[in-house]
Parts: sequence; structure tokens; C-alpha cells
Amino acid sequence: MSWNSFGRLLRLTTWGESHGPAIGCVLDGCPPALELSEEHIQRFLDQRRPGTGRNVSPRQEPDRVRIMSGTYEGRTTGTPIGLLIENVDARSKDYAGLPPRVGHADAAYEAKYGLRDPRGGGRASARETAMRVAAGAIARLIIQEVSVAARVMEIGGEPNPERWDRLLDEARANSDSLGAVIECVATGVPAGWGAPIYAKLDADLAAACMGINAVKGIEIGEGFAAGRASGRASRDAMLASGIDGGISTGQPIRVGVAFKPTSSIGIGGRHDPCVGIRGAPVVEAMVALVLADHKLLHRGQCG
Amino acid sequence: MSWNSFGRLLRLTTWGESHGPAIGCVLDGCPPALELSEEHIQRFLDQRRPGTGRNVSPRQEPDRVRIMSGTYEGRTTGTPIGLLIENVDARSKDYAGLPPRVGHADAAYEAKYGLRDPRGGGRASARETAMRVAAGAIARLIIQEVSVAARVMEIGGEPNPERWDRLLDEARANSDSLGAVIECVATGVPAGWGAPIYAKLDADLAAACMGINAVKGIEIGEGFAAGRASGRASRDAMLASGIDGGISTGQPIRVGVAFKPTSSIGIGGRHDPCVGIRGAPVVEAMVALVLADHKLLHRGQCG
Amino acid sequence: MSWNSFGRLLRLTTWGESHGPAIGCVLDGCPPALELSEEHIQRFLDQRRPGTGRNVSPRQEPDRVRIMSGTYEGRTTGTPIGLLIENVDARSKDYAGLPPRVGHADAAYEAKYGLRDPRGGGRASARETAMRVAAGAIARLIIQEVSVAARVMEIGGEPNPERWDRLLDEARANSDSLGAVIECVATGVPAGWGAPIYAKLDADLAAACMGINAVKGIEIGEGFAAGRASGRASRDAMLASGIDGGISTGQPIRVGVAFKPTSSIGIGGRHDPCVGIRGAPVVEAMVALVLADHKLLHRGQCG
Amino acid sequence: MSWNSFGRLLRLTTWGESHGPAIGCVLDGCPPALELSEEHIQRFLDQRRPGTGRNVSPRQEPDRVRIMSGTYEGRTTGTPIGLLIENVDARSKDYAGLPPRVGHADAAYEAKYGLRDPRGGGRASARETAMRVAAGAIARLIIQEVSVAARVMEIGGEPNPERWDRLLDEARANSDSLGAVIECVATGVPAGWGAPIYAKLDADLAAACMGINAVKGIEIGEGFAAGRASGRASRDAMLASGIDGGISTGQPIRVGVAFKPTSSIGIGGRHDPCVGIRGAPVVEAMVALVLADHKLLHRGQCG
Repeated sequence: MSWNSFGRLLRLTTWGESHGPAIGCVLDGCPPALELSEEHIQRFLDQRRPGTGRNVSPRQEPDRVRIMSGTYEGRTTGTPIGLLIENVDARSKDYAGLPPRVGHADAAYEAKYGLRDPRGGGRASARETAMRVAAGAIARLIIQEVSVAARVMEIGGEPNPERWDRLLDEARANSDSLGAVIECVATGVPAGWGAPIYAKLDADLAAACMGINAVKGIEIGEGFAAGRASGRASRDAMLASGIDGGISTGQPIRVGVAFKPTSSIGIGGRHDPCVGIRGAPVVEAMVALVLADHKLLHRGQCG
Repeated sequence: MSWNSFGRLLRLTTWGESHGPAIGCVLDGCPPALELSEEHIQRFLDQRRPGTGRNVSPRQEPDRVRIMSGTYEGRTTGTPIGLLIENVDARSKDYAGLPPRVGHADAAYEAKYGLRDPRGGGRASARETAMRVAAGAIARLIIQEVSVAARVMEIGGEPNPERWDRLLDEARANSDSLGAVIECVATGVPAGWGAPIYAKLDADLAAACMGINAVKGIEIGEGFAAGRASGRASRDAMLASGIDGGISTGQPIRVGVAFKPTSSIGIGGRHDPCVGIRGAPVVEAMVALVLADHKLLHRGQCG
Repeated sequence: MSWNSFGRLLRLTTWGESHGPAIGCVLDGCPPALELSEEHIQRFLDQRRPGTGRNVSPRQEPDRVRIMSGTYEGRTTGTPIGLLIENVDARSKDYAGLPPRVGHADAAYEAKYGLRDPRGGGRASARETAMRVAAGAIARLIIQEVSVAARVMEIGGEPNPERWDRLLDEARANSDSLGAVIECVATGVPAGWGAPIYAKLDADLAAACMGINAVKGIEIGEGFAAGRASGRASRDAMLASGIDGGISTGQPIRVGVAFKPTSSIGIGGRHDPCVGIRGAPVVEAMVALVLADHKLLHRGQCG
Repeated sequence: MSWNSFGRLLRLTTWGESHGPAIGCVLDGCPPALELSEEHIQRFLDQRRPGTGRNVSPRQEPDRVRIMSGTYEGRTTGTPIGLLIENVDARSKDYAGLPPRVGHADAAYEAKYGLRDPRGGGRASARETAMRVAAGAIARLIIQEVSVAARVMEIGGEPNPERWDRLLDEARANSDSLGAVIECVATGVPAGWGAPIYAKLDADLAAACMGINAVKGIEIGEGFAAGRASGRASRDAMLASGIDGGISTGQPIRVGVAFKPTSSIGIGGRHDPCVGIRGAPVVEAMVALVLADHKLLHRGQCG
């Protein structure tokens, strides 16, 4: 199967390969009358853009987003919002003729479909996450009462940011790569969002973040530490839990996300020594999409 | 919102409160002609049953499952399978008049719905997971090429099983509780199950397990260790990864699940010192449901 | 496939065979705090009950509905509502050993699944519609501003009600059966319910009614007459249209439904000479379910 | 709500307004390895193109479709297929400043969303159906064993094709418009497609066709004639029914569709005297999409 839609009332559908003519998405179910401009979306896209920092892949995509539908005179109309980014810097020659790469989805796609687009990871490329970031920028307009912010907590197991640059330089020099742990906190979520039993807010957040390329672990609130604690010791943490029974409590919601090291060790393509660094805006976007969806769901049943 | 259905082609819908007349479920989309008996389901239910071990809550429910529909002469017919378990030992007096409990969903449900069934956790009770175990037993019939087995890896941070009984005794004596980490491994999954981009096998597994009561963290494969490693160091783990790009590779799939300590510290109800112990059969059931669903999805598009 | 769920935010899942131990359903997504009793549902069930009129099949089912979950002290809690009706008068001997019946789903089920429950039509029996009527009674509580009423317009092509009894007596005497046309009108629907482009209110009503056993045709508003008219001649009808572009306009909504004649000509089972007569409460229920779902959907996005 | 996706395993999502920069769609879930070219899709688009006959609106859109994703070297890859058609001839001046038009969705959209794109019907324009025709062309590749063909049966109530040109000329001269009845027949559908109870093949076909602009009535098989017949009289028709209990029988499947007359009487925009004529390719496309989806669904559960 192929399943390129996400969400229940606010539904994101993405399309496009890394080295095709363009990538795009449709965001359906967005409320009407929200002010929306290409500049607003572009601001968030620029945050994830490769080539804006020393430690990220130097692919020089301008990534100019175009709003193709769903707005009129600068406001959403309630109809589906089509977004499109042309692929202007797709150098597929780096990949031509390469066998399926270890730790990439290449072999898995081939096993599933019997054939694949070999250019730059095709559909499995991290480039698809640009559309998540774009859609997440729109989701933020739906939940203006909420603040969603992610930051890098660890690189290669190192929690001290002062040592990260040196670690990354070493990794690059050695054609090595490093894992990262990202933390995203949502504050301002009112009590009552979320849906028992099979659309719990934490379960939806877990699916949203585990679906990001290279992610291997998810924690909500106390996370694995709680799995290693006693009830007395973690009582304070439980009192401050942002989600109980799958429903928001009004407290801040914490999501921890583990990114594995880049898989593309020593091949000719353009790659980051630590993909997790670029993961933070994507995690934010997915968290914003989940929260916006649940705001609409809650209003539908209980509004 | 309320969202009590799970799955895409194989869809589980559960209903029932802890202290109502019964709990039940509907499993829709099951293939026809599978041999199915109440005894088969009962075997798996008995594994999770409270009161079968020293360290689990002494509620003495027989939990006799009845197949209400969807079979004829011992075989599935392809129509929805209705299951039902009567609640015969629901002593709600333990709970009457109690305020919302810390770390339970009580307050969250009240914030969401404005009212709640206060008896024994109502819909949020772990009793609902009996229907997941029952449905998981049927899912196993769909994926007979796969073996799914979960076991406790840590209790209260202690990885040595020989010390667990003493830890649990101490916790019980102190009205304390302990977290646990469960590991579930699925072997025999052929390459090609899973669905990019928003129904990735790992994302669906994460949602399935994060939706289990008291779960706070999920790992797939190398998990958080990968977030703290370098690419060279984790290269072997990546070669053996059970899921790439959201699609199974044919290698064993590992899911790690962190259960927080029981929340009901020192109240009158019947509770386990470590709910994680009873979590293992539920994790197995959810993993089996996800895999069976993806087998059908894969056959639908690529069969 | 098997697909026994209906609706988007208000979701009905039904289960059960005509001659199994019981039939049941789960209604998920119902708003909290609505007053709901078994008596309320029973009133609507009694309207569709066989054996209450001269011209309907004499099966003497009491059809006592039980609320199994989702309410507390007489009010909905927002959690899934489980309903159950035991099958107390299932005489399957009438059907034993019979080959697949012409005009029934018997052969189609056998072609699809390779086997079937042969007792009384199994899952395809009209008995399943009892759960739709029960769920429709709950849906009405969600849309108390709306009145939904269906009535028989034609029997065997005869629009004059005074002649229906004689037609039915003749059909019964001749072991013949008659088609019927039902009209359902919903008044009080505010402007704005419905969802372009693929959940249009009229499209959802069409699916809901076409899914009722024996239904072969659906009209919305002017219906087939509009297909045979000119724009000038039907201008007044268009001005009064209850649905434009898939969205309610505030005018009454008219649904016309054609039921084919009973298929069971001259066999030993218990059958009505005109199943369409019993169809009216089922049409009402499906219309109420669709409208309630769209009220919640509209509130979710635009509330 | 806004709901711009259609289908269960084969899912079409469309976007775009009549007078925006482009319209487009995503077709997700298509099996891999099917030969697919822009020319194949273009052939079907050209059939519905306005301006190709005397009796259809003279808007001269080339409607050149581009495949944006989902294929590699001329074959589908199993990933989402993005299609795009630029709007090159959108003269919105015809519509500027006009109040909501009678019989159009204008007022309904305004009631729902509080604002709307007033240019040429915006999202509600029949132009959106171009994407259905394009997607339907791909669906046909999935069901190559099936032939789907629609034709006009009546115009303005007149069944004799020889009189249609004169009727249309008169309507145009009088600024009037005419309804039409279309019939679509699918042959070659094997027995067993369809899904009881709430995804019956006939119910899905009804929703698919009722969702086409201007459609007001749907018949399956014998249709309203069955509602006016006796069982004996219609016995032969029942024996040849293409769908029983929501499941295909192997016989041809007939769908009748009633289109109301064009609403835009005497306004300045470019309109057809009989929109039903252009409806035939859209009906074919929707029928093909439903059948392809059910082929995949059937293979998923019963394959």
C-alpha cells in the first residue's frame, strides 16, 4: 500500500519525488477566513532549508512555495489548499546506477513495489518533509493559542551544545555521522483535546513523529525514564503530565524524538553529518498538525 | 472527540466501561475461512488475566469471551466478528465518591466531556485492553507466518529478573509502584509490508503501542540508543533493521515500550504494583493487529 | 472486503447475523450530556418491528434493545454507545438446506467469501437494519432542530393510498410482491451543512439510502424529473432546493427512495409482500445519521 | 467541513479553483508497474473538453495534463500520482461583482464558510471534474478486465437522439437549458467485488455519481421502475442484476444518472445549454474509480 494522507479532519496529502519536476501537498479541512500568505509559509521552510548552516547538506534549493488554491484575497476559503515547490536543483547524476543503499529505504521500496525511482531516494527522500513544514505553518494559524517549539537536546549522546560543532566537524572529516535527540514542547494547549481510545493525543503524536525519516524512538512526558522509575519518585512528573488518558490536561506537552545517524556514509550524494539537526522544524510541524486536527475534532464532538 | 476504532482494512472497534454490564468489540475486515473458536481467543485472554500471578491485581474476573457474530461452523465468514465479555466482578463501591485521581484520566475526561462515568476508571480503565488481546488473537490467525512475542526487560530500571520479585514485594509493602520496559519482537514478517509516507509500519506500531494505558515511550529497532550513537558504531544495527522507510525488510522487528509506574498510589481500589507486567500481552496484541492490517493492505495494492 | 462502519465523526458500526445469538452496534462520536434511555430507542424500533401490521412479516421478535455502554445516569458520556438486541425468535429451519435464493445476496456472498452463513440471509438479512433504526434514534438527539419524516408515496406504482390494501392482499394471495417509493423530508436543517467535494450532503444521503436492502434508486430534490425538464420549467424548484453544491441551503431537503419488490417469491420463509413499507423508518434513520454527522463535521471546521 | 478525498484504498484528492493558477489531484494507492503516460490521460480529458462540440460551452482550454509524480520511465511506482492542469483561459471578468447565482453553490458556500472565491464558481465549478476524468483514466488501467461506457439516454425528456440537436438549438436561442439522463454500463466485473454493509458497491456508485455537479438522481439496475413493479414482473430483471447485497454478481452493472438543467440562465458567463452531455465522461470516470477501489479492497481481504 501507499498511504500519503495524514490527519482526520485536517488532512495533509503529499506527493512528489526528490528528483521529479516538483513536490506538493494538499491540506484539506482548514477553517476559513484565516490570513495566509506565501511569506508566512516560506519563513518556516527557510528554517529547514539545507545550506543555511555549516553543518547541513549544501544543496542550494531556493524552495519557493506557491499557494495554488484554497485562498482568496489573502484568506483561506475553507477549500483544499494546494501547495507546490519546484525542484530546481536536483542533480540525480550523483545517484545514477547506484545499488540500493544500506540503511535507506531503497531496498524496501524495491521489495514492496518491484521497482522504484532510484533518483535521490525518490519518494523516501527527506525532501518530502518540506511539505510537512509548509503544512505545519498553516496548522499553526489554527492553533494560535498554542506555542510549539523544538530544539536539539543531544548530538551523538552529547548534551552540551558547546561541544557539538567539534563533534560534527570530526564526523564530517571521518565520513561518519551522528544521531540526535530532539525535544518539542507545546504550551498553551487547553485541557480536553485528544480522543480515547484509538486517537489518543499521545498516540497520534507518536505516529506523527515516528513517521519522520530516521526517527527511531518517541517519548511523551517522562518517557523511558518513567519506565525505569517508581511511582513515588515520579509523582511530581505525573502531576504535571500534559496528557492523561490520551487527553490534554492543560499542562505543557513534551515530546522527545530520537534520530538515528545519517545512513549515507561515504557515498557521493550530498548529506548532513547529523540529519537530526534538520529534524527540529519537521517535529514542530507534525506536532502542530496533530494539535490542530484535535482542536477541530474536539470542537466537532464537544463544541 | 471519541475515536474507538483502530486499523485501516482490519478494523477493531471497542466499547464498554469497566463497571458496565459488559465490554465488547467488533473486528471488521477479517478474511473468511479462518478456523476460529472461543477457546483460541480465551487462551490469550487468560495470559493477561488479573489474579493469575502474585504480582498482579487480585480482581477475579473469569473474562469468558463469547463470539457473537462473524463465524459459521467454526470458521470466519468475512463478516464482522462481534466479541463480548460480561463484567461479573465489578465492585464499584471502591470508587464511589472519590475525586478525580492524580495520574489517571479522570480529570481529563471531565475536562473534555463535562461529565464522566466515575466507576473504576470507566472507559479509561485498563479493562478495555482485554478486547485488544481478544482481537489480537484473531489477528494472529491472519499472519500465521509471523511470530510475535513480548517479554519484560526491566522493572523499576532493574534488568536482572532474579531481583524483580523482591522489588515488587517492597513496592507493595510501601504502597509504591514501579515502571517497566517491555520488548516485543516479530519474526517472519516478509519484506514489503508497510506504507509510505503516513502509514509507515513503524509509525503505526508506535501509535498502537503508545495508545496502551500507561505507556510513555516507544522505540523501533535501535531506538534511543541510535539517537546517541554514530553512524559507524550503529552500522551493523542498521544492516539488520527490520523496517526501512516504513517498510519491512524481512529482518526481525523490535519494539520497545516503556510503561510508567501505576498511578493509584495508596487508594482503596485493586491495583498492580507494576502494570507493565500485564502490558506484555497487550503489546503483542497491538503488534499483531498492525501487522495483520498491513498484510491485507499490501495484498490490496501490490497483491 | 467487509465494511460495517458508516459515518465520519459520528460512526456507526454494526455486527450480527439474522440467526446468531444477537445483533448489535457501536455508535461512536456521539456528543456528551444528551439524555438517552432505552425507551427512547425502543419507540423507534417498535415502528419498524415486523408483526405490527397486517402487511408485514409475522416474525414476532420483541426486539428489546439494551444500552451496553456510553451512558451514565441517563446521559451520554461521549464514549462509544454499545447497543444489543438478542435474537429470540430465529427459526432457521425454514432456510436449512436451501440453495442460494434468486434476488438475494446469498450467491453474491458465496462468490465473494467462498462460504456463508445460510441461516435466514445471515449478515445480509434486513434484520441488520434494526441497529440502524436504533442508532438513528440517537442521531435525532444530536439534531433536535431538525425534523425527519418519511412516508410511503407509491406501492406497486399506485400513488393512491386507498388502493394499497387491496393491492397487497392480491399480491399475498398470488405469492407475488410489490415495489414501493418512499419519500423522506428533513426540515429545519440550517444552511451550511455538507462538505465539498467528496462528502457532499446529497452524495452522503445517496450512499446511506442506496445501502438499504432492496433499494434501487435515489432522488434528491427534483430528482429524475429534473433530468427530463428545462431550466425555465424547473426554475422554481431550483430556487427551493434544499442542497446546492453539496451544502444545505436552509430549505427542506427531499429524498426519494425506490424499493424493489421482495425477492422471496413463493419460498417457505416469512416475508413481507412489500418490504418498502418497512423501509420508511430505516430511511429516516439513515437520513438522521447523515445529518447528525454533518452537523458535527461543520462545527469541527467552521464552528 | 471540506472533504476533497474519495475512495478507500485507491484515494483521489483534488484541489484547485476554476480561476486559480491551476487545478490538480493526487491519486494514491495505485498499484505499481502499470504503464502510464500523459497521452493516455489526455485522451480521456479531450472527450470532456468544452469547445469540442456545437452544444458545449466554447471555453477553449487546452487542458494539458502533466504527471508530476508517481511514475518512473513510463510506469507507476506505487507512490502517489500527482496531476496538474494549468488554467490558461480563465476570464474572471465575466463574473466579477455578480451576486450569488440562483441554482449555483455560491450562496451555499457563503453560508458555510462566510466567504468564497467568486470567480467562475470557484471550487464548485464543473472544472474540478477534469481531475476526476484524469484519475478515472488511471483507474481504468487497474481494471483492464472491465469495460465502462456511458451514453446520453434522454435530453429534456426526449429519448430520440435525432431530435436532440433541434431541442438544444431552441434552448440556446431562448436562453433556456435542458436536463439529461445518462446511462453507464460496466461489463466484465467479476463476481465478488463490493463490501457489505456500508461500502456496498451500489452505495459507493450512488455516492460517486450523486457527487457530480448537477446530478439529482441515481438508479442502479432496474432503478425506479423496480419501485413501481411487482415481483413477478421484474423477476427476469432480478435474475440479471449486476449487484446483489452490495456485491457484484458477474452480470453487467447499470447506473442511471439524472442531470438537472444548467442553472446559469441568461447570465454573461460561458455555459452549456445541457451540462448533462458533458457529464457522460465524468460518470464513466467515477464508476471506474469505484470499481478499481473495490477490486483492491476485495483482493486485500479475500485475495
